[in-house]
Amino acid sequence: MRILLLLTLSIFSFATFADDGYRLWLKYDKVKNETKRKAYAARLANIEVKLEQDPTLVVILEELKMASQGMLGITPKVSKTLAATLYGVTLEISTIADKKPEAYEIKTINKHSVIQANTTQGLLYGTFAFIQLLQQEESITSLDIKSSPKIQLRMLNHWDNNNGTIERGYAGMSMWKWYELPERIDPRYIAYARSNASIGINGTVLNNVNASARFITSEYLGKVKALADVYRPYHIKVYMSVNFASPKIIGGLKTADPLDPEVRAWWKQKADEIYELIPDFGGFLVKANSEGEPGPMDYGRTHVDGANMLAEAMAPHHGLVIWRAFVYNADPNGDRFAAAYNEFKPFDGKFMSNVIIQVKNGPIDFQVREPISPLFGAMQKTPVSMEFQLTQEYLGWATHWVYEAPMFEENLQTDTYATGKGNTVADVIMGKTFNYPITSMVGVANTGSDRNWTGHPMAQANWFALGKLAWNPNNTSKQIAEEWVKLTFNTDAESQKTIVNLMLNSREIYVNYTNPLGLHHVMGESHHFGPEPWVSKAPRPDWTALYYHKADASGIGFDRTNTGSKTLQQYQPELRKLYENVDTCPLEYLLWFHHVAWDKKLSSGRTVWDEMVSRYYEGVKSVEKMQAEWAKVKGKVDEETFENVEARLKTQLKEALWWRDASVLYFQKFSQMPVAAPYQKPTRTFEEVKKLVDVYHVH
Amino acid sequence: MRILLLLTLSIFSFATFADDGYRLWLKYDKVKNETKRKAYAARLANIEVKLEQDPTLVVILEELKMASQGMLGITPKVSKTLAATLYGVTLEISTIADKKPEAYEIKTINKHSVIQANTTQGLLYGTFAFIQLLQQEESITSLDIKSSPKIQLRMLNHWDNNNGTIERGYAGMSMWKWYELPERIDPRYIAYARSNASIGINGTVLNNVNASARFITSEYLGKVKALADVYRPYHIKVYMSVNFASPKIIGGLKTADPLDPEVRAWWKQKADEIYELIPDFGGFLVKANSEGEPGPMDYGRTHVDGANMLAEAMAPHHGLVIWRAFVYNADPNGDRFAAAYNEFKPFDGKFMSNVIIQVKNGPIDFQVREPISPLFGAMQKTPVSMEFQLTQEYLGWATHWVYEAPMFEENLQTDTYATGKGNTVADVIMGKTFNYPITSMVGVANTGSDRNWTGHPMAQANWFALGKLAWNPNNTSKQIAEEWVKLTFNTDAESQKTIVNLMLNSREIYVNYTNPLGLHHVMGESHHFGPEPWVSKAPRPDWTALYYHKADASGIGFDRTNTGSKTLQQYQPELRKLYENVDTCPLEYLLWFHHVAWDKKLSSGRTVWDEMVSRYYEGVKSVEKMQAEWAKVKGKVDEETFENVEARLKTQLKEALWWRDASVLYFQKFSQMPVAAPYQKPTRTFEEVKKLVDVYHVH
Repeated sequence: MRILLLLTLSIFSFATFADDGYRLWLKYDKVKNETKRKAYAARLANIEVKLEQDPTLVVILEELKMASQGMLGITPKVSKTLAATLYGVTLEISTIADKKPEAYEIKTINKHSVIQANTTQGLLYGTFAFIQLLQQEESITSLDIKSSPKIQLRMLNHWDNNNGTIERGYAGMSMWKWYELPERIDPRYIAYARSNASIGINGTVLNNVNASARFITSEYLGKVKALADVYRPYHIKVYMSVNFASPKIIGGLKTADPLDPEVRAWWKQKADEIYELIPDFGGFLVKANSEGEPGPMDYGRTHVDGANMLAEAMAPHHGLVIWRAFVYNADPNGDRFAAAYNEFKPFDGKFMSNVIIQVKNGPIDFQVREPISPLFGAMQKTPVSMEFQLTQEYLGWATHWVYEAPMFEENLQTDTYATGKGNTVADVIMGKTFNYPITSMVGVANTGSDRNWTGHPMAQANWFALGKLAWNPNNTSKQIAEEWVKLTFNTDAESQKTIVNLMLNSREIYVNYTNPLGLHHVMGESHHFGPEPWVSKAPRPDWTALYYHKADASGIGFDRTNTGSKTLQQYQPELRKLYENVDTCPLEYLLWFHHVAWDKKLSSGRTVWDEMVSRYYEGVKSVEKMQAEWAKVKGKVDEETFENVEARLKTQLKEALWWRDASVLYFQKFSQMPVAAPYQKPTRTFEEVKKLVDVYHVH
Repeated sequence: MRILLLLTLSIFSFATFADDGYRLWLKYDKVKNETKRKAYAARLANIEVKLEQDPTLVVILEELKMASQGMLGITPKVSKTLAATLYGVTLEISTIADKKPEAYEIKTINKHSVIQANTTQGLLYGTFAFIQLLQQEESITSLDIKSSPKIQLRMLNHWDNNNGTIERGYAGMSMWKWYELPERIDPRYIAYARSNASIGINGTVLNNVNASARFITSEYLGKVKALADVYRPYHIKVYMSVNFASPKIIGGLKTADPLDPEVRAWWKQKADEIYELIPDFGGFLVKANSEGEPGPMDYGRTHVDGANMLAEAMAPHHGLVIWRAFVYNADPNGDRFAAAYNEFKPFDGKFMSNVIIQVKNGPIDFQVREPISPLFGAMQKTPVSMEFQLTQEYLGWATHWVYEAPMFEENLQTDTYATGKGNTVADVIMGKTFNYPITSMVGVANTGSDRNWTGHPMAQANWFALGKLAWNPNNTSKQIAEEWVKLTFNTDAESQKTIVNLMLNSREIYVNYTNPLGLHHVMGESHHFGPEPWVSKAPRPDWTALYYHKADASGIGFDRTNTGSKTLQQYQPELRKLYENVDTCPLEYLLWFHHVAWDKKLSSGRTVWDEMVSRYYEGVKSVEKMQAEWAKVKGKVDEETFENVEARLKTQLKEALWWRDASVLYFQKFSQMPVAAPYQKPTRTFEEVKKLVDVYHVH
């Protein structure tokens, strides 16, 4: 196995290196507290293995070895039996109380730290949990931990293309080197598997939902198989995005009509071919009839026809079809908000049992704040999966520090009232509300070939959070931040607290200087970089900014109440009530649901205009505060990481000012109201700011 | 300075790492021979600095510190004076015999190793030369080294785009993170500067010749300035590729006509703006009226008009204009071979004195073997620069091991007979033949964001070779390979010899299984991957394969003699004679210049067809031999590197077979001749091979 290489010490050099972020939260740095280090070392010196040989056992032992060598400077001795009188770690497959295959328990029995599970997969997760206790310098003298995931499929979706680019990726290129596969296994593939397994992620979609059919040619399936082989011991299943027109593109058929027998046969044969190579292949992810992608509607068929055709091909192999609900029509007078619900709600119950509908958290497209998609709680007989976006397409790319877990939490903890009060989105996707047979949570990955994986060092936390929320959607963003910081920064408690606070505030700060009060979709056209609230022309009306903010002399915002597009009706009455009264609607969602006069007084005591201005300006000030807070950890965290974040905060401040000035100067054309004290009107003109934006459209 | 960070030891871990190639040839691993290590350590313990403080001195001392810490485990003590009775290294600015600003001497004076130069730039090169002696475990007890470069501008051209992709890049993304600049300086920028300085490279063109005007907006110039500031202490000047239509694209003018006063004023102002930010800015590189790029001919003007307009703008700042000669017209019955010469030869002497004409090594486009461009030796009054391609656009991307120096050497050592016998291309570009006031050699970079910079670990040698050949074009590919291997692989002499031999044979092997006998331009259309000798349709006739190989029932090859396109006439008579007689033309160039019958007997004793078949088959066999040879160094070189190369050789073999089968089966349709013993006809059909190629055209 290639992974054995990780232990090969082959640099004979006296020099060491700064922390470049490659190791993520699996730092395994030397435990500084000598007493603890010695206590841990005493236990880790011996590992008792009470199970049969197994590929997952190999990687478990490898991980324990790496952790011990890095943190404790020892190499554990592995044996089949260990005297109870000796300190040690016991790995054991045995029937534990929680019957889920992924469950584990960590106990202290006599002098042994015992990790028990029903399967090696559970043992893998238990081992990582145990190592993470050491990393956090927790006591392990009397452990009694029981854990199992609340969601079955915990996945990353990679929007990676065959030429190595990543759609909406801001951390380098795809980590998959298709031209080197299957022969060469990049060590990064293994690092990826370890990192995911360490947070419970058990599935990965390797390629972009805007899918190239090339990926399912026989040539490329051989490459996919090589990756599946690498990931298998880590219990990460491989999935592929498929192009619905593949039978035409690579199959030589004249149609991709899902009711055409030849097309159905083609997909069956393709599924058979895949499972011949990869017996535990996860399934297909499909973006059909969405943003120009082909789909069943090209042939007068429905999403049900399309999904079920694929599901039929996959069923004999127990493969899944994950069908995305991200569909919308280009109606200039319509409301894109309504599209997914309108399209999919009528199909509830009509999909085969191996179909999951994957729904983005909000109704539009990963905006800085979205109310929940009305589809959560609406589909009673069809499992609905949560799709979050980790990559910061609308969240400032790689130069804005946005810890996303509070945003995810906000949606997960929203009550859908699906079968009455107390049915949060978390409950729905955990399958509690409608007893879904399959449950799933997905993050659109923010990883790339950048050395530190995510570009912004702090964005590693978003990947980590996805794993932790998929394991338990009721985990809080604060708990997760605290844990990530402890694992990632080997520093003092005060500094850790500073970083956690920075994280927890970061997303609201970003909202304030970019999209206050529920503004949405006012970013740069096509590239989605920087402010561009003035976009009035685009290939589709619903790709403009005006479509969404509807600013005019009378006010600003999208009226989705009964006086407007009426799409609020897609929610249950209780949830609708929360939003539909302009006077009680939370200010964070105001412009999502209401077109309000510029001079309307808000609960804050300010007019709409003044409240907007205040948030833009306070947002910028908050970035300055972030800089001051970050400066406090200088010398307390690794210098390379410190400087990296420090520099990105400078860029963030520059761009926050850009957002503020562009937005205030643009909307002021409609409000005709002044920037009131204590704030001062931007010193640059609207034309100057706009010119800056134009630079980013020069190809 | 950010570089001080490199010394910060901030990983507190017991674990060490395999060699991932990031350090290139600057390995600084512990010197294994203890006697030598102690002897070196005795000398490096003290550094005497006999010059004023200077940014370059800072990086020199930093480098000596890093080298000492890594190789010797010591940190040198730096002082202004050091007793002659003590061992030490002396750095000194003093007038040395060679007056060139970049010259250096390394001598032993008493107990001191003395590095002397006229400038700190010379000292920088001398220091790297000294460190490289230690890396190679050479004796330093009685040194007497004198060196200076034979070419003034030693440059990399990066074909990097503003979205981070690299045109014809196979080693990841651009290393320049434009969205993070100018605030964040990635440590990789410094590693890049060190690596280049260590081999004497003193210029870099940051962006693609298919240039985005975005790079010279004020916004982006601020970013370029940040890079120039980083590179300045390493004496690497920054250059930019410019889009000729910039005055229209970003200047708001209605034309880019080089004779238009407003256009001329715009460029002057732009040059002034650039030099205000970057006083030592190198200059502009221009691809004009080439492959769809805008240029002066769009306005009925000439290359002279265009180049001189820019040169006039740059002249007050001593900036250069590097104008590429890569131009050709899409005439289906013409000969692209002739285009650059026909276009530029008449302009000789008409360019301003700060213009250089940059010419690709061969007349077409970086094919696996090209005869020299007829422009070398033809331009007497205009300096001509050599443009080599390091990135393996036509040389198998990142999975084929091709050491390119023998190919460069082949061209450099070709006699142009420009002013009579003994005027090699090397002489011409060194300025010896026509006394050019400016001399330049350029490599189109093979670097990217991949951890090991070049994708294929062995491709690092091509970057290294460019530096060494630009320093002295008469260095041999063998010398360079030997030095690179010693610096890169800390292994035994026998293994080093094995690797050097592999390198020296690698390019001819690649030629054999892809383009034997002077075949050229038969690769995959557009992406240039894999074999596609059947390409008959492309956006331009001279982008097809048929245009070049002209295979038919009567034979194969491009007749460029007087019975054909007559372009051989562009060479001096002596050189022409070498090629124009089909019976004496070296077989390596046969199909470059002659259309020959399939059954014509060659000097090898075989027919053309049998010779082609033999070379395809022997080429494939040679790859198997490469595998066997590489296997010998297992355990002798770092394991990660070993496995990396081993895996790539597997891919190379697979693709060599693909080339062989596709080519033999395709050309056999014309030759109608059998694959003679001892070779066996491919087991797959032509249709099967062609289908494989098609996969790579699926988007």
